[in-house]
Amino acid sequence: MPGSFPVTPVNRVRRQPDRGHYDRETVHAILDAALLCHIAYVIDGRPYCTPTSFWREGEHLYWHGSSASRMIRAQAQGIDLCLTVTHLDALVMARSGFHHSVNYRAAMVFGQARVVEDMAEKQALLDRLIDRIYPGRSSLIRSPDAREIRATSVMCMEIETASAKIREKHVSDDEADYTDVPAWTALYPVTQVLGAPSPCPRQQAGLARPDAMADFVPGARLDAVLTSAYRRTFG
Amino acid sequence: MPGSFPVTPVNRVRRQPDRGHYDRETVHAILDAALLCHIAYVIDGRPYCTPTSFWREGEHLYWHGSSASRMIRAQAQGIDLCLTVTHLDALVMARSGFHHSVNYRAAMVFGQARVVEDMAEKQALLDRLIDRIYPGRSSLIRSPDAREIRATSVMCMEIETASAKIREKHVSDDEADYTDVPAWTALYPVTQVLGAPSPCPRQQAGLARPDAMADFVPGARLDAVLTSAYRRTFG
Repeated sequence: MPGSFPVTPVNRVRRQPDRGHYDRETVHAILDAALLCHIAYVIDGRPYCTPTSFWREGEHLYWHGSSASRMIRAQAQGIDLCLTVTHLDALVMARSGFHHSVNYRAAMVFGQARVVEDMAEKQALLDRLIDRIYPGRSSLIRSPDAREIRATSVMCMEIETASAKIREKHVSDDEADYTDVPAWTALYPVTQVLGAPSPCPRQQAGLARPDAMADFVPGARLDAVLTSAYRRTFG
Repeated sequence: MPGSFPVTPVNRVRRQPDRGHYDRETVHAILDAALLCHIAYVIDGRPYCTPTSFWREGEHLYWHGSSASRMIRAQAQGIDLCLTVTHLDALVMARSGFHHSVNYRAAMVFGQARVVEDMAEKQALLDRLIDRIYPGRSSLIRSPDAREIRATSVMCMEIETASAKIREKHVSDDEADYTDVPAWTALYPVTQVLGAPSPCPRQQAGLARPDAMADFVPGARLDAVLTSAYRRTFG
């Protein structure tokens, strides 16, 4: 496992190649800061793009779904998949329409998935799906029973190859436009943040937020909370 | 154009059908609150999932890209596409792993795209791409020149069919778990918000944020800002 993904016709960043990255560290960081991805797959020749929660363990990505879902049954055949994560970081205005842009961090991962069949492995993975978001929570709650484990399919995809594409620049205009176009121009940061928790209306008395969720505070950036939770759970 | 999209094997929501919606109003509202979508398409039998900005005009969706991009050249062939928008609205904890969830609003749109060839139509569309985010801005900035218009491809997809899937519930546990599992359990709202604008370092003196961007204020929800901008521009 070298430090970078192989660059192939599938994952090579063609447009604005200066924004392309192939090192595992960059791709992993984008994945581990996200809860949701979008997966492209093909059924009967038609592409579908489905959002789902996912997580990474080493060079494998995992997600789950109902064992009866059309997506899961199709993906279980080992078809080609493309799993994409996108973080929107800023709206970037400009003095020409052409140079308006956004800052973003995106990762595209290619591979095929298989169904995790082993019941004990499935149970351990479903626990880590919870702990990956809420560190240590799987030990505080009711574990999945056999019926729940059977009703859930866990998909495992080895990363075949991947790339990241990142824009993290400020306003960038054609030189003449800086003087010729008297338009107020700015960059607006965009973040995804947590609000104040709304406790379950049927909360038992005397319970408090676990210490392991200390950074789940109103205004916290979700990407930072998820990255921190990821590191606590996977080290 | 009736009030709902046709329900076909392609767009029917099979899992948790109570979360499915087919009325145009619901699908449009999810689309118009978003800047980015993910588009699934197939090249040489392989699916790709690419994030891009987009907007809606009536029953058509538009996006743009470099005329040289592989995605644009493939989509220009009129291949099947699936364009998905997902808003993450909350992390929803539970007293069992099985019932952990998220609140979300997602829309999946199916169709084929064509390239907009007419130069005047392209220019008008590129102006509306800007105004859709920043109302009225296209009249304040330098318009695209012929070279920029040629370098940009604008794609137009008529919505063939679509569906929305929405979860907007609080914590929902198995009845026995409310009493048997003494775990603190809550819903965390998640929002995507604007930060304070960072003016262009080469800003000309004496310029101020246009009145049409009055709701671009720190802490404003991006989905609300985009919905408001959309209505100002398209009525």
